[in-house]
Amino acid sequence: MGRVTTRRSVIRIRDGALSTRPDTLVTEEPLEIRLDGKPLAVTMRTPGDDFALAAGFLVSEGVIASAADDLAGIVYCDSARDEDGVSTYNTVDVRLAPHVPAPDLGTLERNVYTTSSCGLCGKASLEAVRTTARWELDGDRPLGVGTELLARLPDRLRAAQRVFDRTGGLHAAALFSPDGELLDVREDVGRHNAVDKLVGRAAQNGALPLRDALLMVSGRASFELAQKAVMAGIPVLAAVSAPSSLAVDLAQETGLTLVGFLRGASMNIYAGAHRLSLPVGNS
Amino acid sequence: MGRVTTRRSVIRIRDGALSTRPDTLVTEEPLEIRLDGKPLAVTMRTPGDDFALAAGFLVSEGVIASAADDLAGIVYCDSARDEDGVSTYNTVDVRLAPHVPAPDLGTLERNVYTTSSCGLCGKASLEAVRTTARWELDGDRPLGVGTELLARLPDRLRAAQRVFDRTGGLHAAALFSPDGELLDVREDVGRHNAVDKLVGRAAQNGALPLRDALLMVSGRASFELAQKAVMAGIPVLAAVSAPSSLAVDLAQETGLTLVGFLRGASMNIYAGAHRLSLPVGNS
Repeated sequence: MGRVTTRRSVIRIRDGALSTRPDTLVTEEPLEIRLDGKPLAVTMRTPGDDFALAAGFLVSEGVIASAADDLAGIVYCDSARDEDGVSTYNTVDVRLAPHVPAPDLGTLERNVYTTSSCGLCGKASLEAVRTTARWELDGDRPLGVGTELLARLPDRLRAAQRVFDRTGGLHAAALFSPDGELLDVREDVGRHNAVDKLVGRAAQNGALPLRDALLMVSGRASFELAQKAVMAGIPVLAAVSAPSSLAVDLAQETGLTLVGFLRGASMNIYAGAHRLSLPVGNS
Repeated sequence: MGRVTTRRSVIRIRDGALSTRPDTLVTEEPLEIRLDGKPLAVTMRTPGDDFALAAGFLVSEGVIASAADDLAGIVYCDSARDEDGVSTYNTVDVRLAPHVPAPDLGTLERNVYTTSSCGLCGKASLEAVRTTARWELDGDRPLGVGTELLARLPDRLRAAQRVFDRTGGLHAAALFSPDGELLDVREDVGRHNAVDKLVGRAAQNGALPLRDALLMVSGRASFELAQKAVMAGIPVLAAVSAPSSLAVDLAQETGLTLVGFLRGASMNIYAGAHRLSLPVGNS
């Protein structure tokens, strides 16, 4: 995957001294996802794992629940070529299995936020996830995950970020088992793409719902990332940085365990604490 | 603007000790932007400056060039109410002036990336910006900005991030004058929203194109942020973290000055160095 990074000349300034040298950048290119030939969405992404990205996007949007059963196939569009006639590999066409109802494209384009009866509000966003989710999070089953284990995840994620080391320019998302084993990691210029790639790969492997996985992300926990965790049936979302209000609301409503500011032995638990093994409180 | 932050109870763990306390979160809520009554886009944003956000979004997309001339008005939709009949203040309707052609909504929804003849590729994205930009960046005019001045901007941006201090959960974007004076700063859960709010406010003040401003962002420099700078006529974009390949390509093609990894006296200049006053090189 030589397209993951790109070389460009850069002028470096360090303490008043100037030098010119080649620099490694993360590649950003548009990917158009078509559904049975019709344009569905364009996302700016780092090339690679494009079929997984498309499958994960469709899981996140509630269109499919299984790549094996619900997808007839994913191909690059051969007709999408640059002016030299070379395929751009930036357009994928997803063919749904005959039994899968075609989604309302207009609704999908607006990210299903406008389907509610209550005007547009955070509540509508939560409701949209609830009505499209294929699985309930398995709320009563403890995962036996302790804070000591959570504390080790950021370093393990960081160690797995190979492209970040060269470019400093990627978000990462990883799946861990309940005993802390790294199951999969994806890097992308867009954090939502990194999660879609993870989920899509799992869908391709017939591993949905991901009832025994923890999702760890390198940045903040937005509503969108919490939504993707819920839609894939992932019970725990941990983030290095802050969650948003709506991410917390969604976690509380769906039973998702949401951990933020996970930095070594320090962390905040915003929802779903019942799923974790916690130290005894002192306040 | 009490809606900028939200209070939630959180379980804090610090070095094995647990406590429960209220925590301040950044508010994330959907905003639907309508154009003459027709749904155009939904963005997840931090409430506040919603009219500026809508105006800036339309500048970024090339629909308008001036709020005074091109907009007949922006209002909250009174019909968008929650189940208690209270306006959600999450839907704005933008009315264009009669002389402004209505944009192709289908194209806008796909972020103008699919308009090119060369299949979908980065080149198409660059071309779309070139064909929709209202102003050429003023390439020959030096701004007289030195690296010492650039080195001071990250601290000034950080000092202006009031909501980040309370939540750790916001992106920030600021406009500076060529002599380093802070002109405006916006914080938002989405970095693209923070830039749209800055640009929209400038449009409302009749200040476009922003030929004498530097745009500084707290995170990475993606294609989207570089696009917004170009569309607003801003000649310099500086970012704390890494740029993407396509952001650099756009900067080189349009003449935008792009500075990345701006951290005190260290920085990388990826494009448009001619606009800056640089130290003498040593390589």
